[in-house]
Amino acid sequence: VAGTARKRIGRSTLSFANRPVIVATASVAGPDEGRGPLGAEFDEVKKDRLLGLGSWEKAESQFLTEAITMAMGKAKVDQSQVDVLAAGDLLNQIISADYSARGLSIPFLGLYGACSTMAEALIVAAMAVDGGYADYALAATSSHFDTAERQFRYPVEHGTQRPPTTQWTATGAGAALVGSSGNGPVITAATIGMVIDYNQKNINDMGGAMAPAAADTIARHLEGTGRRPEDYDLIVTGDLAAVGRPLAADLLREKGYELGDRFDDCGLILYDRRKQDVHAGGSGCACSALVYTGYIHKLLQRGQYRRVLLVGTGALFSPTSSQQGESIPGIAHAVEIEAAGSATRDEDAAPRDTGGDER
Amino acid sequence: VAGTARKRIGRSTLSFANRPVIVATASVAGPDEGRGPLGAEFDEVKKDRLLGLGSWEKAESQFLTEAITMAMGKAKVDQSQVDVLAAGDLLNQIISADYSARGLSIPFLGLYGACSTMAEALIVAAMAVDGGYADYALAATSSHFDTAERQFRYPVEHGTQRPPTTQWTATGAGAALVGSSGNGPVITAATIGMVIDYNQKNINDMGGAMAPAAADTIARHLEGTGRRPEDYDLIVTGDLAAVGRPLAADLLREKGYELGDRFDDCGLILYDRRKQDVHAGGSGCACSALVYTGYIHKLLQRGQYRRVLLVGTGALFSPTSSQQGESIPGIAHAVEIEAAGSATRDEDAAPRDTGGDER
Repeated sequence: VAGTARKRIGRSTLSFANRPVIVATASVAGPDEGRGPLGAEFDEVKKDRLLGLGSWEKAESQFLTEAITMAMGKAKVDQSQVDVLAAGDLLNQIISADYSARGLSIPFLGLYGACSTMAEALIVAAMAVDGGYADYALAATSSHFDTAERQFRYPVEHGTQRPPTTQWTATGAGAALVGSSGNGPVITAATIGMVIDYNQKNINDMGGAMAPAAADTIARHLEGTGRRPEDYDLIVTGDLAAVGRPLAADLLREKGYELGDRFDDCGLILYDRRKQDVHAGGSGCACSALVYTGYIHKLLQRGQYRRVLLVGTGALFSPTSSQQGESIPGIAHAVEIEAAGSATRDEDAAPRDTGGDER
Repeated sequence: VAGTARKRIGRSTLSFANRPVIVATASVAGPDEGRGPLGAEFDEVKKDRLLGLGSWEKAESQFLTEAITMAMGKAKVDQSQVDVLAAGDLLNQIISADYSARGLSIPFLGLYGACSTMAEALIVAAMAVDGGYADYALAATSSHFDTAERQFRYPVEHGTQRPPTTQWTATGAGAALVGSSGNGPVITAATIGMVIDYNQKNINDMGGAMAPAAADTIARHLEGTGRRPEDYDLIVTGDLAAVGRPLAADLLREKGYELGDRFDDCGLILYDRRKQDVHAGGSGCACSALVYTGYIHKLLQRGQYRRVLLVGTGALFSPTSSQQGESIPGIAHAVEIEAAGSATRDEDAAPRDTGGDER
């Protein structure tokens, strides 16, 4: 199909030629996240996880609403100017996003990609803006330690001992406002993830379950764009944490990619594992959302990073599927983000155009 | 933004100028759906809801996989040619879609819009294809009576008596393959829904909860496109059923739109309420998916319908939110589909172009 092929480079690696801009982000963090290394970076740190509301679930939805509202406020963009909100969370029927969207007058596409949802939302928002279907699109996600624990594992009141491979579901929310013009880091490309299953069944090791999907998506993104790992200042997964990150690095090494020190993980960035009792590291939709919106985005704004690959990672399962003996497949979505005014307007730095339909 | 504004006509009403084509659909129905008025129309009718598998959940996922595989087979399109699968279902963490996607090598965007998910998936697929990000995109959803009952209400083994306002969750799956070229009905426009809440709290009346969202989206679609109800041969909601359909008609009348006999509902089409014990009618992601893929699509193919507005309707809640006293907001997504070779290449019949950015 002439005229459209340039937007798809490699299979399901998308190129956003119209350069959708992340014009503003907002991060609203819980107290544990505030005590972590990025505490001073977040727009707001709450003192308690309940926010004075009647349930953890209502609090999670409130975190999300505050992040969305704050992102619009920073950009001085009104709800009526936003054409779509792409959002989701970990809860059954994504009620955090549903009830947040209820309080807003913004058309809503509900997403579920487990902890990969922020990257999925950024892809949908970038596609909507780059394709001309939206002037502004919001990508937003939340997670909450207490809502996730009682839904996926045990109510926190049980005081169940957690094995060392478990991760700590981040409490908070992040929102990114993507616009067709404006100042800010630019979403230049993305790769949609496939569901990958290595027959992992341990619900206390999400990082191990997601690592193969992360490696698959990162490799496909590099192949699709024709870039090398060295072309990125940072390749950062969502929440592989201490168990999953080295596994993904090994799998990528087997595929011929040595990521080295530029490979990091939001679950390892969000908390100080020596001081905070988070076991293998952070997880949850808010993990990558907080680390991107509160931290990485600022480094791109300041030009300290020139190009980043944000790879949201999700474990696709439910307590029902685990009780029925199913394994835990993973998914990972990659979003390539560049500093404004970076070299990518130059021909040689642009994503490789394969010259048309490859089939 | 010059050059892109024509794709957004009215707020969040999208115009698909590149005319993405639904090149094939497939419908795999359960036994009750097979005994309904459309029984002979479905591609396949299963004799039992368990499909000989170990759980209802595994069966639901299998229904979805069969529909997806059949749609590709009809179009003689291989998995490797499909750039994205947009899919979801009603189950916690959309496990039906997750585990179906696991068995496929197709990049996957997981969606949750409750029973509106088929329309949401068609919008995402159309945006991906129309925007040039995919040559082929699949939209698919499933639902299952037994998985939904035990998750949202009571296990069917309890034999709980259901009040007359309840609806019967359809068992089955539908898939639509959207391509950048080919023969078939064309997706010409769409309107993304907002979350609308009229403070309905009765979990045994989904139609009433969703009716306000359906009316809002239909009115916004008509305003966005500049069309009148008479421009459609059929305006069909997903699953408002016997309680919700007249409420939506009343709300539209208050907004100045008289839909008359062209307004129907998939939940009323799928079953014969006089003979089948479905109370208010059908519901579930598969309700609109089966009625579109198995029935309406064929009437568009034959030219018996020239233009249809398919309005997926979803009730956004979880048992947790209901137990916490929350009301049940609704959402509705509208997808405008025209017969191939219909008059819409003519200038006067095309969706209204508002002439650029309205702000």
